[in-house]
Amino acid sequence: MFIEKIVLSEERNVTLTAMVQDVGGEYRTVTERPGIIVIPGGGYSFCSDREAEPVAMAYLNAGFDAFILRYSVGADAVWPRPLEDYEEAMALIREHAEEWHVMADKIAVVGFSAGGHLAGAAATMSRNRPAAAILGYAVLNEDVRGCSDTAPDVTKHVDYDTCPCFLFATRTDSVVPIMNSVEMMAALAQNDISFESHIYSFGPHGFSTAEHVVQAAGTAITVRAADWVQDSIGWLKEILGDFGTNGFTKPLCKPHVSDDRAAWLSIDCSIGRLFGNPAAQEALAPVIAEMREKITPFSPEMTFEDMMHTLSNMKFSDLLKERGIAVDKLDEYDALLNKLPNI
Amino acid sequence: MFIEKIVLSEERNVTLTAMVQDVGGEYRTVTERPGIIVIPGGGYSFCSDREAEPVAMAYLNAGFDAFILRYSVGADAVWPRPLEDYEEAMALIREHAEEWHVMADKIAVVGFSAGGHLAGAAATMSRNRPAAAILGYAVLNEDVRGCSDTAPDVTKHVDYDTCPCFLFATRTDSVVPIMNSVEMMAALAQNDISFESHIYSFGPHGFSTAEHVVQAAGTAITVRAADWVQDSIGWLKEILGDFGTNGFTKPLCKPHVSDDRAAWLSIDCSIGRLFGNPAAQEALAPVIAEMREKITPFSPEMTFEDMMHTLSNMKFSDLLKERGIAVDKLDEYDALLNKLPNI
Amino acid sequence: MFIEKIVLSEERNVTLTAMVQDVGGEYRTVTERPGIIVIPGGGYSFCSDREAEPVAMAYLNAGFDAFILRYSVGADAVWPRPLEDYEEAMALIREHAEEWHVMADKIAVVGFSAGGHLAGAAATMSRNRPAAAILGYAVLNEDVRGCSDTAPDVTKHVDYDTCPCFLFATRTDSVVPIMNSVEMMAALAQNDISFESHIYSFGPHGFSTAEHVVQAAGTAITVRAADWVQDSIGWLKEILGDFGTNGFTKPLCKPHVSDDRAAWLSIDCSIGRLFGNPAAQEALAPVIAEMREKITPFSPEMTFEDMMHTLSNMKFSDLLKERGIAVDKLDEYDALLNKLPNI
Amino acid sequence: MFIEKIVLSEERNVTLTAMVQDVGGEYRTVTERPGIIVIPGGGYSFCSDREAEPVAMAYLNAGFDAFILRYSVGADAVWPRPLEDYEEAMALIREHAEEWHVMADKIAVVGFSAGGHLAGAAATMSRNRPAAAILGYAVLNEDVRGCSDTAPDVTKHVDYDTCPCFLFATRTDSVVPIMNSVEMMAALAQNDISFESHIYSFGPHGFSTAEHVVQAAGTAITVRAADWVQDSIGWLKEILGDFGTNGFTKPLCKPHVSDDRAAWLSIDCSIGRLFGNPAAQEALAPVIAEMREKITPFSPEMTFEDMMHTLSNMKFSDLLKERGIAVDKLDEYDALLNKLPNI
Repeated sequence: MFIEKIVLSEERNVTLTAMVQDVGGEYRTVTERPGIIVIPGGGYSFCSDREAEPVAMAYLNAGFDAFILRYSVGADAVWPRPLEDYEEAMALIREHAEEWHVMADKIAVVGFSAGGHLAGAAATMSRNRPAAAILGYAVLNEDVRGCSDTAPDVTKHVDYDTCPCFLFATRTDSVVPIMNSVEMMAALAQNDISFESHIYSFGPHGFSTAEHVVQAAGTAITVRAADWVQDSIGWLKEILGDFGTNGFTKPLCKPHVSDDRAAWLSIDCSIGRLFGNPAAQEALAPVIAEMREKITPFSPEMTFEDMMHTLSNMKFSDLLKERGIAVDKLDEYDALLNKLPNI
Repeated sequence: MFIEKIVLSEERNVTLTAMVQDVGGEYRTVTERPGIIVIPGGGYSFCSDREAEPVAMAYLNAGFDAFILRYSVGADAVWPRPLEDYEEAMALIREHAEEWHVMADKIAVVGFSAGGHLAGAAATMSRNRPAAAILGYAVLNEDVRGCSDTAPDVTKHVDYDTCPCFLFATRTDSVVPIMNSVEMMAALAQNDISFESHIYSFGPHGFSTAEHVVQAAGTAITVRAADWVQDSIGWLKEILGDFGTNGFTKPLCKPHVSDDRAAWLSIDCSIGRLFGNPAAQEALAPVIAEMREKITPFSPEMTFEDMMHTLSNMKFSDLLKERGIAVDKLDEYDALLNKLPNI
Repeated sequence: MFIEKIVLSEERNVTLTAMVQDVGGEYRTVTERPGIIVIPGGGYSFCSDREAEPVAMAYLNAGFDAFILRYSVGADAVWPRPLEDYEEAMALIREHAEEWHVMADKIAVVGFSAGGHLAGAAATMSRNRPAAAILGYAVLNEDVRGCSDTAPDVTKHVDYDTCPCFLFATRTDSVVPIMNSVEMMAALAQNDISFESHIYSFGPHGFSTAEHVVQAAGTAITVRAADWVQDSIGWLKEILGDFGTNGFTKPLCKPHVSDDRAAWLSIDCSIGRLFGNPAAQEALAPVIAEMREKITPFSPEMTFEDMMHTLSNMKFSDLLKERGIAVDKLDEYDALLNKLPNI
Repeated sequence: MFIEKIVLSEERNVTLTAMVQDVGGEYRTVTERPGIIVIPGGGYSFCSDREAEPVAMAYLNAGFDAFILRYSVGADAVWPRPLEDYEEAMALIREHAEEWHVMADKIAVVGFSAGGHLAGAAATMSRNRPAAAILGYAVLNEDVRGCSDTAPDVTKHVDYDTCPCFLFATRTDSVVPIMNSVEMMAALAQNDISFESHIYSFGPHGFSTAEHVVQAAGTAITVRAADWVQDSIGWLKEILGDFGTNGFTKPLCKPHVSDDRAAWLSIDCSIGRLFGNPAAQEALAPVIAEMREKITPFSPEMTFEDMMHTLSNMKFSDLLKERGIAVDKLDEYDALLNKLPNI
């Protein structure tokens, strides 16, 4: 591993600290690694150390390369300055991807509080979108006015190209009200974006990893608050893939809940979408025949068509997996559907 | 332990199965136990076995007594029939509390899907409120119309007397859209009710405990979906208390985020509330003197008053605990404040 | 689920409490369940309630049927009376296997302290061997004299037919010295028996599940002591198999570390054993050819034969899995080897 | 954090890579950190990268400073050369303790395979003993001859000054037989040394952290094998103490199971030891009076003296804690006993 501090702006004290691990040799199939940009909080008036290295350490320990971004704060924080710092950082990492053996398309962000606002802006508004965003007790709605006059309401910028998000916070946060996370979930749901979220029963704002090293000892905080660290790592592996025998594995979880709004059809469209498309019906004829045979409707008076209507919001691939139908041909059918426009 | 199936209505096939564990003897300080009513789902057309005993078992294993409620379904499910079944069940358990060694004021509910709707109604609308409610991939908004023409939108009935709630669901639920849980969180936040929530990345509707015994093997579901079971047990112990040396311990988490809307003041009111009340100021004079001495404002130009203003949404007790001030006198100050009307 | 208390001997107060869960219906592929006999401790002078139902509950929660054996104690505990109680209990369960939907060949035992001695005797000396034995802070060596004049030293009876064992204890147990577990491990190793063991840093004797319900609150005990419950469940699923799509899965872990002492060869014999047997060499010719091609010796001066010599204690199947060689033909080669006597 | 590679011997390629984290500032009470020396395996013929950085990362993530020792191997490995490398490394860290903010008396070692042999030698034979030793699938008995003609059998060198040990291995290790760990446990038990040990059901030799980044994907290994990492961290915090409100906390677990062989008495001597010492009896008179009052013998025919005889191996402090007697005066009584020679 090496650690290198790169100055992005000397005058505004913007830096990117790269912590890059070894690959190859005894690491065998680990020839490159996913990365994560760590964006500490501090109300856009400073960058908290407690949300920098201890966080980077957790993802390094999980096999990621980590990059701590210290962005423009205080008088320098006039929007979109902090977002431009992020853009520069992400561009720089992608430029060095080959040299550092980082996977350019598998770089996530994790941000806290105001840093969570910046990570949220990266997820929704940036030119260099991350592959996934972890938003910790983040300022996401118009409350951002409390720490920046110029920064945008992130929830208003969620769109179909927003990356998958992982949100966490404590219910009792007295600095950033819980509605910030709740409104973000609603916006993500509205736009069909994949997300995971954990709102813990009680605890203060700014608990970082909830470990003793970063927190006053008498603090009232639920033991579960520390779970977000491992849970976010598990989630990243679902979204990005994981180290496997033959290189990195395929993701288990797509960026959208279904492909119903995608340009081309796929087996991850809903049953309703595929059954309503004649070309899809034709391409899927053999598997639909098999479904007719193997799937018993919930009640005797139901027809197969009724049954499919009832399940119309379910992903087609999920139904096949659950019923053990054509499981080994999923890729094949997907390839067929990928040729059909989603109209 | 004994198991007893009590018929609440023979004609509508409504039953309560009591599973009651031993107390006393070698169990020493365990002389009574908290309880939980398990309310299976089934779209108000049946009661799912997979969401009954396997769920009861998890809470029995955690030291609870469990009570499975099979309520009015199908043609019998006309509202408020199912809620009346719940009312009867809770009243019956409370009547038997002494005989069964159940703590009458520490009985929670856990419900799934349509059963989660019923549990939500119990939490918000019943005469016999539970002490806590666990709502699993629950129907909570107007989507309930999909399975019952007569059942109410639970989110509209959340009020200040709603019990603390624990919500969980998968983001990709294709039967009960995730907005059911998101809107419930918003309603709880609006009413200052304590809650915890976990939205997992992906998985089907109706996963119960997510164990192999209750789930088709090919099902695509995140490994974290099974965490809700232990997490809900941990949460119940925070809300209800837990077995301890000298009987049951005090809860770690109150039903409301603060006591700012309570009839009488307490140390769990916010700093803003207490500092704005002259009688409270007087009662707290010694501890405020100590705070002035020990708490350094965030920056040199801040006064102590500025600092308190910045922290005005924080619970007074949380600040004292975090700073280690008067920690052993919290009960004493609380008693003083409890005599002062919250005006 | 039903609970039934069966009297095995009225005069000696020997009982078996069967706790049997539902199968079929909504439980789909769960048409029968594995079982476990719970044997509480009590120094052969009583049967502890704290090591009975709370333990049964943990395994019920994991999908097992549970059977609590209260055996002959006090004046009735003259050996082999307690072991005969066990034999009767196991025989009775196996007789009812079909009726109760228990898998007759997948019934484990879990015993504590003196009950761990009895479970250990069941594992090593009984006519009706269990499929696996969990031995909790068990009396296993000649220390048994401290609570019974007539009971045998279990470590002396370990043989090739002893079932797999899971041992746990605390290092600081002041009642049953840790050497009981250490000597048992040595005896199991000597006889090539599969085992898992966890010795926790500190804690008292008799901690049962280490939950608050069974333990005095001031007790000094490491938090990890409670891990044995879930760990033993995970281990049982490796030894017995687990619920799966098409019925119960194959075990991941065999009763012996290798099949080197078995009557017939298998792919779970060591490399040394198989490479030393000409008939095996012939049967495996194609896979060995593939190995020669794909396995690079550790250093240039090593031949393939040197390499196999270095790995001679490794299981043949483990090497193939690790190197990804003929993985889909393992069953086929196993069938071939199973026809060859291990001479 | 900084990383610095220090050359201990250029000709033998011996290096110490220091990975030292920040303290103070926002880390508040974290003004210094415990440390750990990571000793990779490799049969004394090389130093494995897979047992170096990935391991260091886990302890860094837990708040430790980490130091990777690459010691003399191959022709340079003639004993006691590797042990001298360790001595030099530990001496160097202790010299830099103040500069690097490492706690000189809280530096552990973790070693794997042959590196576990070296860590075991450090624990038992070195001049600069570590505070604790983690021994992973370590070569500890005379099997060491297989990789070094000159290295000693560590189990033969365990003495009263050996540091607490944490052992882990897989039962099916085909390179280092499990008896290495079993014999080490026996030697530690014999010498009254604190230890924890975890033998996992199945898995290969050399699994390091059992994460995908360090292991071939097809490898047959139990999921529990990865638990040693977090368990060893929990154990280190019991042995060394942990970050707390007022600096580092007191250890929960002493290096010896009791103080019965210590030079001076303490409340951590056994009941038998203290009740057999007249001076101790006098010092403890008030607490013994309280015990007489509050402790009911197990049966009516037992006297208090019988009861104490039955519990004679129990630590005096453990009994008081379990029964809630004089718990707030433990330090006081300990101070009294510390003045009495243990004769």
